[in-house]
Amino acid sequence: MSVAVDIHNHFLPESWENLAERFGEPNWPWMKHLGCGKAMLMVGDQEFRPVYSATWDVHKRLEEMDRDGIDHQVMSVTPVLFAYLRKPEHALDCARMFNDMALEMCARSGERIHAIAQVPLQDVDASCREAERAMANGHIGVELGNHVGNKDFDDEGIITFLQHCAHIGCPILVHPWDMMGGGRMSRYMLQWLVAMPAETHLTMLSLILSGAMERIPESLRICFAHGGGNFAFTLGRADNAWKYRDIVRENSPLPPSSYVKRFWIDSAVFDERALDYLVSVMGDDRIMLGTDYPYPLGEQQMGSLIRHAKHLDHHQKTRILGENASKFFNRSFDKRI
Amino acid sequence: MSVAVDIHNHFLPESWENLAERFGEPNWPWMKHLGCGKAMLMVGDQEFRPVYSATWDVHKRLEEMDRDGIDHQVMSVTPVLFAYLRKPEHALDCARMFNDMALEMCARSGERIHAIAQVPLQDVDASCREAERAMANGHIGVELGNHVGNKDFDDEGIITFLQHCAHIGCPILVHPWDMMGGGRMSRYMLQWLVAMPAETHLTMLSLILSGAMERIPESLRICFAHGGGNFAFTLGRADNAWKYRDIVRENSPLPPSSYVKRFWIDSAVFDERALDYLVSVMGDDRIMLGTDYPYPLGEQQMGSLIRHAKHLDHHQKTRILGENASKFFNRSFDKRI
Repeated sequence: MSVAVDIHNHFLPESWENLAERFGEPNWPWMKHLGCGKAMLMVGDQEFRPVYSATWDVHKRLEEMDRDGIDHQVMSVTPVLFAYLRKPEHALDCARMFNDMALEMCARSGERIHAIAQVPLQDVDASCREAERAMANGHIGVELGNHVGNKDFDDEGIITFLQHCAHIGCPILVHPWDMMGGGRMSRYMLQWLVAMPAETHLTMLSLILSGAMERIPESLRICFAHGGGNFAFTLGRADNAWKYRDIVRENSPLPPSSYVKRFWIDSAVFDERALDYLVSVMGDDRIMLGTDYPYPLGEQQMGSLIRHAKHLDHHQKTRILGENASKFFNRSFDKRI
Repeated sequence: MSVAVDIHNHFLPESWENLAERFGEPNWPWMKHLGCGKAMLMVGDQEFRPVYSATWDVHKRLEEMDRDGIDHQVMSVTPVLFAYLRKPEHALDCARMFNDMALEMCARSGERIHAIAQVPLQDVDASCREAERAMANGHIGVELGNHVGNKDFDDEGIITFLQHCAHIGCPILVHPWDMMGGGRMSRYMLQWLVAMPAETHLTMLSLILSGAMERIPESLRICFAHGGGNFAFTLGRADNAWKYRDIVRENSPLPPSSYVKRFWIDSAVFDERALDYLVSVMGDDRIMLGTDYPYPLGEQQMGSLIRHAKHLDHHQKTRILGENASKFFNRSFDKRI
């Protein structure tokens, strides 16, 4: 059996200090426990998402990893806690707090659960320091939200942080958050269904078309959640535009498809044909198991999409389930179940 | 040789009345001719897009159709002229003017160029009347922008118009416009690359998840530009969300993938793998040749993506190149070259 490493799943501690009180500002997230292992993640007085004990309970996580044949998880915080639009000192404090709580959870997992850290991305220096502190403490990478207000990944500060991550060998998972579209996305979870994959698309094209990828060392390991959103599917459109419009290509010496080999993506697309498509465009060495566990929009039977994929051979499945994660995180993940 | 019918391409007349003067409001589109068959489409004093004579010159269009083996075109106005955010009476006046000019162009084409009409979608009654007038005058369908400000296709007025189109047998091409994302899309043509396919995605999911598709007769023929944007690629994500979140499925009795057979899309994706993917998800009976001719982001050699597709057989190519258009428009398109 291939080693299975889930690189995209989320945690929240069972409870944490009242952040609204700590920072003297309203509308911070908190956990409203409902009993029987159920809870509602709240933002201020608004219900944000129903969650259950796997979100915070290491024992429950391991039980479900065993059930689904997942050897390792690399967990990251839920984006609602990024705090990029808060005061930088609050975001740094929040990052340190949740990063430390993540490592406490990892410590109880028998080295099967690992964590990537959050950073206060609105403050580049603080982000560099927190990434270093986190890596020194046991985190194996960082999770970034895909923008900071109107600053996308062609922002000079964010490019500086990405360069720093390349220099210190810190892998990055980019997760969409703070979704575009305003009130038009307020129904039917369109923020998650339409805006999230568009956010990731915007980030990847901003990195390419700004020329940022030319300034970031090739050693950077950067992965995009949800199969890279809409990037791969619309790559033909981007290449065609690069070819025929000077305003598309003016900062980017190579067509967008040339940069495919600089990016990793996860497998969280919930459709075998979409996964096949991603293998054909990104390559089977660039895709890693990602489940979005333990949330309702995640893969309910973790790993099943890859394991049941009819058009992938054993070697491809082995790569996507775990081998690629070893390369991406530059460490071995051993067979545990 | 299969008949080739391009159902997604655009026109503008060579010139038209000064709309800013006519309506007493600034920032209407106008054509700034630069000589030698080149022009700049202007909006007020802003450059909007470089265009060339094929945009307005029927002879040039026919010459390029002959060059690329395109028998018929179904042309539609450039979305910048939709005027949905203007006063309804101005939008109606604008629609009538450009619809009539479109038919003048068609009349000079030897029945090789056909037109679909614009309507003032902010005014449902006026839209119904203009669609009827246009169909009576020779238009073979309508082109709709994919939203009217914050009103998406789950808006009651728009649903009423769609129902009316089903009743009068008027096919619809939905084109993204007025793109989401604000200033974050201002660079590198991200409005076209990221926001346009997201706009179309939003429209298709709004139709499904609102329950509107349950209220619109199955006889409605509705096609979405640019391969339906991000809809097909992210369908697994939408189905998964429908399955596991009540707030996604509360108005929609069936999962999103159930509605695939109610939609048509065009082939304007500029990548053979993406086209293969669309065939696998939407079916080869639901895709029609669309080029976005004669614009720089269009298919420069019209029809080449389909004709050179390695994984499509002759029958599939025949359907996508023209047979499906005959069914969609409920009329025959004969071989002309």
